[in-house]
Amino acid sequence: ADLNVFSPPQQMERVLFPPLSRVAVCGGTHGNEMSGVYMLRELKKQSAGQAGSASLMTVLSNPRAVESCRRYVDKDLNRCFTSHLLRAPLTDDAPYEQKRAHELNAHLGPKGSDEAVDLLIDLHNTTSNMGLCLIFYSSDWIALHILKYIQSKMTSAPVRAIFVDLPASEAYSLESVGKHGFAIEVGPQPNGVLRADIYNLMKEALDLTFEFVQEFNAGHTFEGGQVEAYMMEDPVDYPRDPTTGEITASVHSQLQDKDFKLLKPGDPIFKKFSGETVTYEGEELYSFFINECAYYEKKIAFLLGEKVRLDLPPISVNND
Amino acid sequence: ADLNVFSPPQQMERVLFPPLSRVAVCGGTHGNEMSGVYMLRELKKQSAGQAGSASLMTVLSNPRAVESCRRYVDKDLNRCFTSHLLRAPLTDDAPYEQKRAHELNAHLGPKGSDEAVDLLIDLHNTTSNMGLCLIFYSSDWIALHILKYIQSKMTSAPVRAIFVDLPASEAYSLESVGKHGFAIEVGPQPNGVLRADIYNLMKEALDLTFEFVQEFNAGHTFEGGQVEAYMMEDPVDYPRDPTTGEITASVHSQLQDKDFKLLKPGDPIFKKFSGETVTYEGEELYSFFINECAYYEKKIAFLLGEKVRLDLPPISVNND
Repeated sequence: ADLNVFSPPQQMERVLFPPLSRVAVCGGTHGNEMSGVYMLRELKKQSAGQAGSASLMTVLSNPRAVESCRRYVDKDLNRCFTSHLLRAPLTDDAPYEQKRAHELNAHLGPKGSDEAVDLLIDLHNTTSNMGLCLIFYSSDWIALHILKYIQSKMTSAPVRAIFVDLPASEAYSLESVGKHGFAIEVGPQPNGVLRADIYNLMKEALDLTFEFVQEFNAGHTFEGGQVEAYMMEDPVDYPRDPTTGEITASVHSQLQDKDFKLLKPGDPIFKKFSGETVTYEGEELYSFFINECAYYEKKIAFLLGEKVRLDLPPISVNND
Repeated sequence: ADLNVFSPPQQMERVLFPPLSRVAVCGGTHGNEMSGVYMLRELKKQSAGQAGSASLMTVLSNPRAVESCRRYVDKDLNRCFTSHLLRAPLTDDAPYEQKRAHELNAHLGPKGSDEAVDLLIDLHNTTSNMGLCLIFYSSDWIALHILKYIQSKMTSAPVRAIFVDLPASEAYSLESVGKHGFAIEVGPQPNGVLRADIYNLMKEALDLTFEFVQEFNAGHTFEGGQVEAYMMEDPVDYPRDPTTGEITASVHSQLQDKDFKLLKPGDPIFKKFSGETVTYEGEELYSFFINECAYYEKKIAFLLGEKVRLDLPPISVNND
């Protein structure tokens, strides 16, 4: 199931990027994912608006959802950032999150423009046992180099990456508003709960990101190489009663908590309440976001993906 | 920290009880605790209103909260069953849960009356790592014998009990409406998520309860003996900013997930976001409901309790 999506020459030319002058860290995009909510409070107290040589903006993305400790008020904010939705005129009775997406886009973007922040990091939690995971769109070499940097420095846990293969205009989540960006997804943590272990993983990843920004802006050349990522493909729904639509099975104990394990035909994936085991019958793929709370309503029991290797060119700053 | 709260003679006289003819199983009392919600659906499909020789009522306690997958709509339903609240006249603008408590009391009670169901079991989940736990009020010998029965039959996990020392009139939770009753509390499970392992623990405890009811009604004498329980005492709040009231620490990694371990002076209990560790300075007690999601708003980081031994007389049915 391994695949090179890019097959560039082994020796890639160094690519130059403008400095990462303006960095934004967002949290509470989902109001019940607590690591980001608490992280932002601490960042505000401690950072004084700076992350090394970069200016740092800290943004509580969905304050109304945070206030009531829910994922969202009217609709999932983190699906509101496609170019289409950001361009659509707002009516008075538009969902709160759609209005908020426009505000955030004005504040941190506009998406795709020169005025957008250079790097946007959005902080998330999952109830799935995914550890520390970076989620990004397309081959954003800055984001991929940050992934590689974190992987090389972090010893306390594996650092995995999920790659969502969508063009920027269709990218629906907040980090797509920045010139570069990614989500930091850490779990397992119940919604509404703050766990020290999960918080510490997120903090370590964020501190390393700031360290990268500092070194990058100071002129350090980051060598090319390869990183591995899981390319998001098909979702798998729970078995349901065809008449009522009700879920008729739980994720099988042998799959629960086994995120990023290779799923093979014949592996148990669901246990029906009536007793039978449902086995996997597709091609060999990796599963993740297994039994994520917020995906029940999206009809997703887990996601499937292929492992891919991405080639990176060397990069450094262009201060001209 | 061990204590006998009761010191009865070693040989206790057999106590006779009327048959357990009417059993009620309730779930969704908290609308985001999913094991009970799913358990009820399956019970309805499979039981046909009978649990052996007893009639079985299945009740979705808070359908509006279940519908929106929240703990409650207006206020915590499971704090609405004191005699005082059940007697207070309802106004039109009373909170939804207060109205619902009156309905449930009419349907399953009235609390303290001859018409009340003989046994009321309420199904709950916690985000704390408490495994399978029975929660009960006062020295309800039927409930305690069921605890002893489940402990003697269940090998897959320890079965613990929490004892809430309140008179029946002040007992605030749903199970207090039955002549006998207890809550089955199973965790860790995130709100809004169904885990197979947690569901199975609850199902096993419920099946054993039905088995007990069957044997009890058939005339079996259950021998006396002792059971252990944790007597709920003081709650401990999170460290907070004295000005804003905001939480300034997470539960320490060394306490997280260690429910029912003896807490000793000097043990780390919180890790402040600023870095310092907060240690425990009270007397030796057991901690549980550690980092339970719903208790953030109740200003409870964990509960403390003493371990007690309760003496049980032999019991059997009185069919006269």
